[in-house]
Amino acid sequence: MIQVHVFRKGQEATDIPVADLSQVRTEPRTLVWVDLVSATPQELAAMGEEFQLHPMALASCAPGAKQRPRVEEYEGQVLLVAYASKPVGEGQPVDLHELDVITGQNFLLTFHGGHPIEAAAVARRVTARPELAKHGAGFLLYVVLDEVVDTFFPTLDQIGERIEDLEEAVFEAAGDVQSQIFSLRRDLIAIRRVAGPMRDAVIVLLRRDLGLLTRESQRYLQDIYDHMVRVVESVEDYQDLASGALEASLAVISNRVGTVARNLGAYAAIFAVVTMISGIYGMNFAHMPELEWRFGYAWALGLMVVLAGGLWVYFKRKGWL
Amino acid sequence: MIQVHVFRKGQEATDIPVADLSQVRTEPRTLVWVDLVSATPQELAAMGEEFQLHPMALASCAPGAKQRPRVEEYEGQVLLVAYASKPVGEGQPVDLHELDVITGQNFLLTFHGGHPIEAAAVARRVTARPELAKHGAGFLLYVVLDEVVDTFFPTLDQIGERIEDLEEAVFEAAGDVQSQIFSLRRDLIAIRRVAGPMRDAVIVLLRRDLGLLTRESQRYLQDIYDHMVRVVESVEDYQDLASGALEASLAVISNRVGTVARNLGAYAAIFAVVTMISGIYGMNFAHMPELEWRFGYAWALGLMVVLAGGLWVYFKRKGWL
Amino acid sequence: MIQVHVFRKGQEATDIPVADLSQVRTEPRTLVWVDLVSATPQELAAMGEEFQLHPMALASCAPGAKQRPRVEEYEGQVLLVAYASKPVGEGQPVDLHELDVITGQNFLLTFHGGHPIEAAAVARRVTARPELAKHGAGFLLYVVLDEVVDTFFPTLDQIGERIEDLEEAVFEAAGDVQSQIFSLRRDLIAIRRVAGPMRDAVIVLLRRDLGLLTRESQRYLQDIYDHMVRVVESVEDYQDLASGALEASLAVISNRVGTVARNLGAYAAIFAVVTMISGIYGMNFAHMPELEWRFGYAWALGLMVVLAGGLWVYFKRKGWL
Amino acid sequence: MIQVHVFRKGQEATDIPVADLSQVRTEPRTLVWVDLVSATPQELAAMGEEFQLHPMALASCAPGAKQRPRVEEYEGQVLLVAYASKPVGEGQPVDLHELDVITGQNFLLTFHGGHPIEAAAVARRVTARPELAKHGAGFLLYVVLDEVVDTFFPTLDQIGERIEDLEEAVFEAAGDVQSQIFSLRRDLIAIRRVAGPMRDAVIVLLRRDLGLLTRESQRYLQDIYDHMVRVVESVEDYQDLASGALEASLAVISNRVGTVARNLGAYAAIFAVVTMISGIYGMNFAHMPELEWRFGYAWALGLMVVLAGGLWVYFKRKGWL
Amino acid sequence: MIQVHVFRKGQEATDIPVADLSQVRTEPRTLVWVDLVSATPQELAAMGEEFQLHPMALASCAPGAKQRPRVEEYEGQVLLVAYASKPVGEGQPVDLHELDVITGQNFLLTFHGGHPIEAAAVARRVTARPELAKHGAGFLLYVVLDEVVDTFFPTLDQIGERIEDLEEAVFEAAGDVQSQIFSLRRDLIAIRRVAGPMRDAVIVLLRRDLGLLTRESQRYLQDIYDHMVRVVESVEDYQDLASGALEASLAVISNRVGTVARNLGAYAAIFAVVTMISGIYGMNFAHMPELEWRFGYAWALGLMVVLAGGLWVYFKRKGWL
Repeated sequence: MIQVHVFRKGQEATDIPVADLSQVRTEPRTLVWVDLVSATPQELAAMGEEFQLHPMALASCAPGAKQRPRVEEYEGQVLLVAYASKPVGEGQPVDLHELDVITGQNFLLTFHGGHPIEAAAVARRVTARPELAKHGAGFLLYVVLDEVVDTFFPTLDQIGERIEDLEEAVFEAAGDVQSQIFSLRRDLIAIRRVAGPMRDAVIVLLRRDLGLLTRESQRYLQDIYDHMVRVVESVEDYQDLASGALEASLAVISNRVGTVARNLGAYAAIFAVVTMISGIYGMNFAHMPELEWRFGYAWALGLMVVLAGGLWVYFKRKGWL
Repeated sequence: MIQVHVFRKGQEATDIPVADLSQVRTEPRTLVWVDLVSATPQELAAMGEEFQLHPMALASCAPGAKQRPRVEEYEGQVLLVAYASKPVGEGQPVDLHELDVITGQNFLLTFHGGHPIEAAAVARRVTARPELAKHGAGFLLYVVLDEVVDTFFPTLDQIGERIEDLEEAVFEAAGDVQSQIFSLRRDLIAIRRVAGPMRDAVIVLLRRDLGLLTRESQRYLQDIYDHMVRVVESVEDYQDLASGALEASLAVISNRVGTVARNLGAYAAIFAVVTMISGIYGMNFAHMPELEWRFGYAWALGLMVVLAGGLWVYFKRKGWL
Repeated sequence: MIQVHVFRKGQEATDIPVADLSQVRTEPRTLVWVDLVSATPQELAAMGEEFQLHPMALASCAPGAKQRPRVEEYEGQVLLVAYASKPVGEGQPVDLHELDVITGQNFLLTFHGGHPIEAAAVARRVTARPELAKHGAGFLLYVVLDEVVDTFFPTLDQIGERIEDLEEAVFEAAGDVQSQIFSLRRDLIAIRRVAGPMRDAVIVLLRRDLGLLTRESQRYLQDIYDHMVRVVESVEDYQDLASGALEASLAVISNRVGTVARNLGAYAAIFAVVTMISGIYGMNFAHMPELEWRFGYAWALGLMVVLAGGLWVYFKRKGWL
Repeated sequence: MIQVHVFRKGQEATDIPVADLSQVRTEPRTLVWVDLVSATPQELAAMGEEFQLHPMALASCAPGAKQRPRVEEYEGQVLLVAYASKPVGEGQPVDLHELDVITGQNFLLTFHGGHPIEAAAVARRVTARPELAKHGAGFLLYVVLDEVVDTFFPTLDQIGERIEDLEEAVFEAAGDVQSQIFSLRRDLIAIRRVAGPMRDAVIVLLRRDLGLLTRESQRYLQDIYDHMVRVVESVEDYQDLASGALEASLAVISNRVGTVARNLGAYAAIFAVVTMISGIYGMNFAHMPELEWRFGYAWALGLMVVLAGGLWVYFKRKGWL
Repeated sequence: MIQVHVFRKGQEATDIPVADLSQVRTEPRTLVWVDLVSATPQELAAMGEEFQLHPMALASCAPGAKQRPRVEEYEGQVLLVAYASKPVGEGQPVDLHELDVITGQNFLLTFHGGHPIEAAAVARRVTARPELAKHGAGFLLYVVLDEVVDTFFPTLDQIGERIEDLEEAVFEAAGDVQSQIFSLRRDLIAIRRVAGPMRDAVIVLLRRDLGLLTRESQRYLQDIYDHMVRVVESVEDYQDLASGALEASLAVISNRVGTVARNLGAYAAIFAVVTMISGIYGMNFAHMPELEWRFGYAWALGLMVVLAGGLWVYFKRKGWL
């Protein structure tokens, strides 16, 4: 599906047919954004012809390519492979969508398989500042990238909450902590794997002179770079916290095993004392004075209670119970 | 809230109204420091106009922005995002305050949400050395940054004490060591996250020729750089010690479980011996000579005492008790 | 065994005898690929003479040399040592084949011990795009390398499945998890050891001006570089997951030991209570009122059932059973 | 306390009063070494004036400053902050002394709080090779630094011995291994923290053209650099060994817990068999043939011995005892 | 002990007295190799004079110096400190021998304490290719270094076998695995400590223009560099495998403890059931119908067998036995 957005003098037009693009693009101070959802080979070919895209750039934008985030330059055009994220339901793996961007002098194409970013939000921001249109597609690229990068923060917030829940679970020994930590780490590895190269791609946009970006556009991209660095650093922090949580969980479990062992030992000792006394008075010796006592039975029971109680108090004080 | 400090010939004036700033700034050998606490949008706008600040620099200084420490240059002005720390009560997470600084030729603006540094201390140091005023706002920047960086040391000392307490707790098996180590690590990650970029920001101030800093100012900043490196290295050392403490705690716990197991085993054996004897003499065989003995009962009890006592001594020697 | 493939005008000829190579090579727009399987010293010498190969380059291509992947330049020729992989049966170590390549202006020689890549696939791709023949052997090198690099993905997919199986096994405590993780790590180390240097070798081809590669060929090689980076990153991710799985397995085992200990403790307590009661009523006191009761026996059994049942319910609620 | 050493023509003079320094320094081929122990502010000021030291260099040399090792250049003078070590008694933390050095054309000042190096040894080496005096203070700096760096080796040897003792203790399960490993790691962190920056400081002396050092002096400093690298590498090796020892200790402890558990289990089974038999013959059935047997009691005891002995042999063979 | 080898026109002469060296060295196309075993100070001094060696280079070659591998350049001469290895008997630490090399225009001196490499092998290879003599001592250096580096491979093979044995031991829980892993790690650290700097030394020979090496010699040294890289990478791989083995061993031990605990628990339950029944029928109630039964005893024994057997089957199915 192809959706064309044309920005002119702070106005957005979305009703331009693809066929008119060639003509619209020649108008001054006009920016064209073409958004392709699950583009068919025909649509890709049409775009390739219209915007004179390099075959390898176009191949990278085909649905299902699953590539590493990166920047590539093709005579006057720039290909950017990026990823956006979406919050997910509990227990589901992190959700990462590839979004490929090709930018030329006054146009920007996005290729993706769903709607990782909101087209309306992009349009609102672009139309809100018509004076920035003079920076050409660089400004459009900034807005799109900013929306893409911002999709990571809700996901990171979710992960932050998962870690907080995990920490409580670790110290309260609740639930299935280990497998949760494991799937958390999986998610963090998945995010790091796209976020790291995306940060590097943004720095390539910033550092290399790609011709497309004015100095002012680069200043805005600096902001995106800072956001990406924060994403990467947050992932690293969460990774540290997750392995800290696993280590702590190991210690907590060991601790608990120790506590249980001490506990059991104490109760075993108490029962053993009672059993010992009953064993003694269960012996069949002909001459056992206590057996003939009037209150022998009471004596035995009393002895049991006193010894068991004494041990109980002793262990309580020693902290074993 | 806006507080203006004007330094002239080793004197500080704090009663200059904001409206007079434009005029004051034109006087030679005068340094202006404007300290904004939780600046309102109006105050930000006023400053932006007065000092001709770049919109993106100003946006970075708005309250609640929560940014990574960094240095940015805007035609003749420098934006520095830094953090200060404050000691906290026991059991509370580490306290980090963002403090944004914009410096121009002869002025310095600070934006923050509370009072991370003492304005009086800054004023005292600036007025104490009027001859350094010739280095312009570079000297003011040095004093402010030095105060900011020095706020980290009490926090680090606190952490050092926490680690020492933890070590004792680990080897005395006292209290809730694991969760304390975990929250310690959290705090260290939080500090590292601001301290590392701050160190890098100071080195940018040192290395890049920003026009604002004289060679002598840079020599002073070198000192701040050394302090930041010490902060970062201390955090790393503490991180090493914290994970060392956790590993040691794991070993200590395992050790203790082993000790308890040995202990229990020894006592179980002692009781088992007594139970065995009482069991034997509790059997109902028609012909059991001991049962008819005059002192059979005493013999049985004696046997119990001797065997149990013997085992006790044996285990004591073997180190199991 | 020597197999000659000659590509001319989008046609492949495989029936050219080695003796005619000298003549064929002089024809314009002709690419020669000589594929040597377990080359004999005679065959190596013949190739060395025909293509004027450097003795050290030739020595590197002798079967059984077992070298690190790398690129070397010899006056106008390039030696590339690479590895290909093959999926293996369950329980077998990862399969890595050395494949050495020497490329000159319009020829390419491959040396290997088996058939790590499919010659037919290479031929198909080369003949499919006759227009690229103008890039000389650089294009041939791209196709061969692409086939080589792509052999890693089925192996990585196999490993991905092994890790997924392992994760389930870890949390279901099924089978011999530790030794499987260990052999997985061994395989990952083996792949990393060839993949890392191969990635570096490709970047040498890309960066250094080797004279053989046109700018367009390099663009294609960029694609191979991205694939190699993905291989290396996947290996690293799998290494992270494997050690995460081992750590999780440690925690899971500890957890289970704790559960078993709690379990045993609870049942031991239940039995101990029954034993205690039977012990008490097994004592031989002359005066034990219960013994004379009409329903004394029932009382004792009832007491046992009630106490044991009570404990059972108690432990069930506490989560120990 | 100030101690002046003047080296002239292979002779050392230590009786020069501070007041004569200005004059002595003008003599050719004369090297002046001023050694300040816990310098008072007055002494510092006097030196500052005499040798025209930069205020910041002087501030760095004040007692109690506790700085990171580093090199700084001040118009024609070099400040070097270094540390020396001293062997310590058993159980004490590693001992590190700051020693600050300022070197000019033909003089060298050392500032410290005790006697980290032996002045006599320095004097002996300087007077032994009068021909090297032509290299000026560079040679003096080499001798002092060499003495300083060599103080680390006895400390490292001590640590090497501690690690060897620890290893034995780990595998013999003797003593309080964990806390010893922990304090060892603390010491290693402390040494690494000064040794790393010292190595970097020496490389700054070597690489940067500081004007003070002749090419020949730099060759000698190369030797000191190699020593510092060895110190740092030894610390890293010891850190690896220490964490290896802790991990091994964890495994050893776990192993021992397992052994104890097996042991206990075996003995418990043996006792349980005896108890079971005595329990059976303690039942009060009216018709139990064995009870009436002539040698019933002996039969029961024999059964116990045979079963218990059989189990004992069985467990012994299985390796559980 | 001094052994002189003179290579002329593909011939080796070993009977040249030291006194004739000065004259022999002036002959064209002649290479001189002097091999010093445990050189005495007199021998060192004689060499120093004959070949005009720098005092510091000579000092580095004195026996017992124990230095880091490195390359140093002294006016037209190169000092190389290297190490060779030797396979050792079982249970012994890895064997590393220092070997110092000084090379000049047409001579090469080796200093060592034993015979880390075979002189005959060196001679054979040098005489085998007389045409390479034109590369001067560079070729000699290549041959010596190649022999030195190749001594590492048998040692690495030994270590590879130790690791394979260890892995089996880990999973079969045989022997004293932990201390073996520990000593393995010690050996690996020792090798890494010399192999890393040796690799760096070879790269210095390759990169820096030392005047001694022709372009062709450098190509050969490239080969040695690849070997050293393989040594270092093998050590790293083995380190990974060793720590993997230790971690696996921890998991295996924990697993076994868990198995033993389950085992014990199951048997304890079986015995407890038998004990419970005998306890019940050992009670002394006046009215216990079973006691009067004709086959009461058989009933009790039968009950024991049925319950114990049932539990045994139950636990067997549950996998606890």
